Amino acid sequence: MMRQSQPRDRGIPEATVARLPLYLRALNGMAERGVATVSSEDLATAAGVNSAKLRKDLSHLGSYGTRGVGYDVEYLVYQISRELGLTQDWAVAIVGVGNLGRALANYGGFVSRGFRVAALLDADPEIVGDDIAGLNVEHIDELEAVIKRRGVSIVVLATPAAAAQELCDRVIAAGVTSILNFAPVVLSVPDTVDVRKVDLSIELQILAFHEQRKTDRMSGGPLMAVDSQ
Amino acid sequence: MMRQSQPRDRGIPEATVARLPLYLRALNGMAERGVATVSSEDLATAAGVNSAKLRKDLSHLGSYGTRGVGYDVEYLVYQISRELGLTQDWAVAIVGVGNLGRALANYGGFVSRGFRVAALLDADPEIVGDDIAGLNVEHIDELEAVIKRRGVSIVVLATPAAAAQELCDRVIAAGVTSILNFAPVVLSVPDTVDVRKVDLSIELQILAFHEQRKTDRMSGGPLMAVDSQ
Repeated sequence: MMRQSQPRDRGIPEATVARLPLYLRALNGMAERGVATVSSEDLATAAGVNSAKLRKDLSHLGSYGTRGVGYDVEYLVYQISRELGLTQDWAVAIVGVGNLGRALANYGGFVSRGFRVAALLDADPEIVGDDIAGLNVEHIDELEAVIKRRGVSIVVLATPAAAAQELCDRVIAAGVTSILNFAPVVLSVPDTVDVRKVDLSIELQILAFHEQRKTDRMSGGPLMAVDSQ
Repeated sequence: MMRQSQPRDRGIPEATVARLPLYLRALNGMAERGVATVSSEDLATAAGVNSAKLRKDLSHLGSYGTRGVGYDVEYLVYQISRELGLTQDWAVAIVGVGNLGRALANYGGFVSRGFRVAALLDADPEIVGDDIAGLNVEHIDELEAVIKRRGVSIVVLATPAAAAQELCDRVIAAGVTSILNFAPVVLSVPDTVDVRKVDLSIELQILAFHEQRKTDRMSGGPLMAVDSQ
């Protein structure tokens, strides 16, 4: 299989970056099932995008597949992982060890994708000292020291809304510039810091659209979705 | 403000449906801050898309804004909510009441968006009978009866991977056709059923890309992202 490559001098569009994890998820599923090569059509279907967009996205990585054969699954996993920086080992701290923090600490999907939960922190003396997923929960007073000592580069905020901004400020002051926010609040941060906010209801909203469409279809309504763009 | 409207006879592209919740999240934030109107540029920035795409997406809803004024925030919230089916009241059952299930049951973001957690189910006798977020956890043996009795139309699977497929089959047999899957497994379902899979590591992967880019930039590497498409 020919593997062409081009210099990555024009940058990768942000929207492409956002889709790479979707391709990676689909490819990992195929690799687990022993699939060696995949057509752009099949990969596009598995990832929920159209195949022209998929081919364009992958061309940004210098990956073009082979006519009549498709993409080498294992190699494409490597290319995307490298592009996303997942071939490194990212030390992640989870701040806030309630139900969500515990669920995240135990979430198997992080380790397999290059993320290592390196610290758990909480303010509640009832929780500090607990062993969760092989880690001892440390007191939030230790936040700055823990970030430094463990080389934490990404912080997951899973605190109540009221505590999030203050902790966010402390995390940033400690030198962290990548934050994943589960707290239901909009954080204000300097331009140099990347915050991504997880809204657990977004996928539910997409399901609701389809559920409504099914109901409308049964009652002869006009609403429908087409699988394009 | 003029509110044009056109017949929605051509359907809404799937990719647009996936972006509507992002617009809604941004608009709700603006409404909370008392913002009355918003330009397509500002809304696009807040939602993380480009403004041409935003205008095209909203045109599918028959919403075109007003030149020099922009979009009416409150009315656009209503239009998108209606389109997504969020003006209805969706009864949701959470199957699997471990840390993640508990976190979801307590998650404030559902109710405000038209979702009502109507049932919690688990197989563990230690958990069955617990009161969580005002609901009594019921035994999984009651699954079919609970779905029917409470009019559940969307099921959230938050079980271990090993239990997910069997429970998914039971949920579908009970007439549910919309499933949100948090279990780390690919579910096989009939074409008539919509499954959306939540991968909690996807946002982390996007952060890792940017984190890597920052590191590369400091060391003079070529990798960069551009905000386009």
